Amino acid sequence: MPKRLQTRLTELLDIEHPVLLAPMDRIAGGALAAAVTSAGGLGLIGGGYGDADWLEAQFGAAGNQAVGVGFITWSLAQRPELLDQVIAHSPAAVMFSFGDAEDMVCKTRDAGVRTIWQVQRLEQARQALGAGTDIIVVQGQEAGGHGMDRGLMSLLPAVRDLAGDDQAIVAAGGLADGRGLAAALMLGGDGVLMGTRFWASAEADGAEADKAELAKAEGDRTVRTKVFDLARGLDWPWHYTGRVVHNAFSEKWHGDIEGLKGDLAAQQAAYAGSAPDDFETRVVIGGEAVDLIDSVKPAAEIVQETVAQAAALLSGAGARLATE
Amino acid sequence: MPKRLQTRLTELLDIEHPVLLAPMDRIAGGALAAAVTSAGGLGLIGGGYGDADWLEAQFGAAGNQAVGVGFITWSLAQRPELLDQVIAHSPAAVMFSFGDAEDMVCKTRDAGVRTIWQVQRLEQARQALGAGTDIIVVQGQEAGGHGMDRGLMSLLPAVRDLAGDDQAIVAAGGLADGRGLAAALMLGGDGVLMGTRFWASAEADGAEADKAELAKAEGDRTVRTKVFDLARGLDWPWHYTGRVVHNAFSEKWHGDIEGLKGDLAAQQAAYAGSAPDDFETRVVIGGEAVDLIDSVKPAAEIVQETVAQAAALLSGAGARLATE
Repeated sequence: MPKRLQTRLTELLDIEHPVLLAPMDRIAGGALAAAVTSAGGLGLIGGGYGDADWLEAQFGAAGNQAVGVGFITWSLAQRPELLDQVIAHSPAAVMFSFGDAEDMVCKTRDAGVRTIWQVQRLEQARQALGAGTDIIVVQGQEAGGHGMDRGLMSLLPAVRDLAGDDQAIVAAGGLADGRGLAAALMLGGDGVLMGTRFWASAEADGAEADKAELAKAEGDRTVRTKVFDLARGLDWPWHYTGRVVHNAFSEKWHGDIEGLKGDLAAQQAAYAGSAPDDFETRVVIGGEAVDLIDSVKPAAEIVQETVAQAAALLSGAGARLATE
Repeated sequence: MPKRLQTRLTELLDIEHPVLLAPMDRIAGGALAAAVTSAGGLGLIGGGYGDADWLEAQFGAAGNQAVGVGFITWSLAQRPELLDQVIAHSPAAVMFSFGDAEDMVCKTRDAGVRTIWQVQRLEQARQALGAGTDIIVVQGQEAGGHGMDRGLMSLLPAVRDLAGDDQAIVAAGGLADGRGLAAALMLGGDGVLMGTRFWASAEADGAEADKAELAKAEGDRTVRTKVFDLARGLDWPWHYTGRVVHNAFSEKWHGDIEGLKGDLAAQQAAYAGSAPDDFETRVVIGGEAVDLIDSVKPAAEIVQETVAQAAALLSGAGARLATE
């Protein structure tokens, strides 16, 4: 007797399970997005820093599966034509993260496409609500990759209190299994968006050696830092940091950002020239949820296990109560 | 038909509700601890930086209620006789936070008193388990006051995976209502320890003006910083930071710790000389959960509302599932 979790999110997106794929740059390609959708969630292709040809190829790789796309808002603002390109594919949703997406939300909604706005602070949630986005993703600092400083545990219920009962809200950051999904629902969320967990999946783009590093990493060894944005020459607004698995390169520079800036050209060259398997130099992006990830799995298995574990926890929750 | 949440924690401590009072220095006195115990949870007096006379007075203030005491481990190590003093009162439990408490746990256990060890990282949880503590508190970076950098959302289930099914585990950090308690149970916890929520209670020691500041503060405006330890001359190990409500003083120095150190005597004098209601100078300690706190309440009401809200969420959790 399989059970299904119905929430505002599953109704709004007409999907079976309240599980979204985080649109990770160069990791969440069409194959992974299609695998998550096929398993009953919703896959979001990682629009990243904007590459029209790559995006086109990912829609091709997704085939007949309904997928969405996620953009880095400040980067998309520099190449707005990419939004038109994506809208032309009638995606299941478009997600905007890291910046003021009000105009993009309006344009996307006017085209009849669902909108998702990821926020990291309560003040950003106010902005997203003001723009009338269909779905808000609340991302905690636990998350891998770019984000900010607030923890999910208070921010999620605070956004629910702000948004009221009708808003679809998704939890992100530090979530990798059914415990996280069940907890997100208790905190006022309608589902989860998972990144690191799907990065360590069979269908994720990227090297198998990177995935193996994730599976063996510990959350204690992840850190939010500016080091790899500087080393890679990515021009992120300063208040966003990226959570990564700490290595020798980040340990050297994390506490000496001014030193890194002072030697930037040489360090960027050293970084760019490092071998693909030089994990003491090259970044492995991952969130604190690496503690909960010990193997690389097919995306469908991740969706199924997450939902089954959450369903078991929720089914049994009432039994924790004893009548006096 | 009132309902009761039974967990490993309530069984171990023989209490009605899985709600503990964080032993906040100078805030969690005997009156507040007794109020939390009287309401069915467990109150822990804040042993802080160690003051034998003050501690004695708090046991007096607690009256006949069974209460515990929480110590700052590195500070207690400098005045170990305080542990003997507390053990002589046969407290309900003794809690150790911030440092290696192995010897203290052994001594306390040998005296037949329950032990609680608060951890902020997975490696610390290994240490606490090795020492055989009765209860582990897993504190996320969302917490007010001292702590470290890991978020609760991944760390709590990771500690459960490490500890196995029999260990009593309590969640702390960013929790202020029944949503947090229900979420903590889903993540593998057996209850919650709340600080900021009880700081904004009628029975908390401290100025009513401070409590009013907490009730109106926003989580976006809290920050983990070293500023107020330096300004107050508190010799904390450097890896512990304190979450506070940002004010003009912390905004000036948070990004310029070296500058503060360079002018320390003058800044300490200025801090010490500031007026009690000068909230742009004096610290108001609070966690990200301030978003969920909008009024000062009696502690008993906080316990009752938290448990009732969690019970309602858990009772209704199964109904979120639709059979296909």
